[in-house]
Amino acid sequence: MQFDVTILGSNAAIPAYNRHPSSQVLNHNGNLFLIDCGEGTQFRMNKFGIKRAHLNNIFISHLHGDHYFGLVALLTSFNLNWREHPLHIYGPPPLEEIINIHFKHSQTKLKYELHFHSVLDNEAKIIYDDQVLTVETIILKHRLPTTGFLFKEKKNLRKINAEKIAEYNIPHHKIVEIKRGEDYINEQGKHIPNTELTLDPPHPRSYAYCSDTVYTESFVEQIKSVNTLYHETTFIHEHEERATETFHTTTKQAAKIAKLTNSGKLLIGHFSARYEDLNLLLNESKEVFPETYLAEEGKTFTI
Amino acid sequence: MQFDVTILGSNAAIPAYNRHPSSQVLNHNGNLFLIDCGEGTQFRMNKFGIKRAHLNNIFISHLHGDHYFGLVALLTSFNLNWREHPLHIYGPPPLEEIINIHFKHSQTKLKYELHFHSVLDNEAKIIYDDQVLTVETIILKHRLPTTGFLFKEKKNLRKINAEKIAEYNIPHHKIVEIKRGEDYINEQGKHIPNTELTLDPPHPRSYAYCSDTVYTESFVEQIKSVNTLYHETTFIHEHEERATETFHTTTKQAAKIAKLTNSGKLLIGHFSARYEDLNLLLNESKEVFPETYLAEEGKTFTI
Repeated sequence: MQFDVTILGSNAAIPAYNRHPSSQVLNHNGNLFLIDCGEGTQFRMNKFGIKRAHLNNIFISHLHGDHYFGLVALLTSFNLNWREHPLHIYGPPPLEEIINIHFKHSQTKLKYELHFHSVLDNEAKIIYDDQVLTVETIILKHRLPTTGFLFKEKKNLRKINAEKIAEYNIPHHKIVEIKRGEDYINEQGKHIPNTELTLDPPHPRSYAYCSDTVYTESFVEQIKSVNTLYHETTFIHEHEERATETFHTTTKQAAKIAKLTNSGKLLIGHFSARYEDLNLLLNESKEVFPETYLAEEGKTFTI
Repeated sequence: MQFDVTILGSNAAIPAYNRHPSSQVLNHNGNLFLIDCGEGTQFRMNKFGIKRAHLNNIFISHLHGDHYFGLVALLTSFNLNWREHPLHIYGPPPLEEIINIHFKHSQTKLKYELHFHSVLDNEAKIIYDDQVLTVETIILKHRLPTTGFLFKEKKNLRKINAEKIAEYNIPHHKIVEIKRGEDYINEQGKHIPNTELTLDPPHPRSYAYCSDTVYTESFVEQIKSVNTLYHETTFIHEHEERATETFHTTTKQAAKIAKLTNSGKLLIGHFSARYEDLNLLLNESKEVFPETYLAEEGKTFTI
């Protein structure tokens, strides 16, 4: 089952070196989730061939412009393109007021339902839940109320061993129970343990998005063993003081979080405009956590 | 004296074919004026090497997003880049509320003075006036209150004929009067007419920006003999009915305005996303007004 993330932008506050502000799109089996929506996100969706008709949920971490200035433009384009199916936005409460004031003054009447879900930064909680996936907030520490997002696959059903099902001549209506882990007792009263009938399912995968934040270990337990961690890395480690002052993180700090959480891999992003050569950041982070990758625009990473 | 316009974007509502929404920058002798500011304007300022430190005045025609969604992002980048000198914005009154609500929720404190000038669409009037240039509103007819902008050089002083000044041994303190057109009477009482001492100055130049609007001749007298006219041309002439319904203009209608106003040249823009090949629009317009040019991104036109 496809589960990957495509980076649409990962520069910090000021666009530079043709790098654009934060946005990324998570693809879970064809269902798209947009995380942050900096200015020009819709241009890069076009550029990288993102199928926006499959996008139904947008998550906004906080109200610094580099994380949401492209949102109302995207919503407007959906409307001009005659979108009809509902769209859900999850973000800080004032975002609703911001969206509404734009639509009020442009006299925009939406052709689709827009559902706004207020996200609070007081405690981590599940804000999205479907048959296969949940999204939890991660409480971050930034200058404004900010949450990250933890995307977690639900525990998969066990995989049927087709040969054994045929061998024991198990009727079709029993299959769901067996997928759930139940044993089978046949007409003769013979007990066949579930382990003989099924195989282990794939391990549920998870993705954590942590931007923007000062260094904090407060969410380490929550995201333990995440498959892929995106953590902001605005500064090189030499600029640690500046990072702390501005509630951002350095290369080595992000890598330490990846290590503490035992992440499968680390994507670093939210690069300061002061750095032209991103290998400076990559190499520093790799010293602490070798499985680090630059979250550069247009790159897709398997979770 | 330099007087030109660089197109930063000229697509209508939806970005398409790598064409972006409305924005252009007028350069008058190094003083920059931004007209409209669609999403991603700051990216294209970077791309085309616009010196934004020389930009002090921004004019917004109306509150459809494709004409202003890049504004707050640009204002924010000015702030992050430590701009200190004042900036003036001219636009529809609600734009001030929109700007303020973004800054309120991002807790942005501007390091530079931002002066907002409300522009009304009830009558054409001068909204900007410096030593060499005025800007007048042009009243357009669109679905929202909309104004165009007429940039007019002031009447130039007469040019000194240096040879004659030397020949008549005219003292330095008389030069300004002579530039203004006064005759000279020397110590012996001899009358030397101004025409002998000066040459005709360059004719004042003008630029009219008319977007968005349905076809209307209501401003033809006001912009008569403009050197360069930018007129929106959202549709080909076959789609005239659609143009009228949506308060937009066709190729032949824009060209007719250029003809009626006796414009030096016509720039057409605000192209609908339905047209991939813009020559379709160019050729139609040229049939009526041969001096038509496509206002394509990155192109600079001398006024």
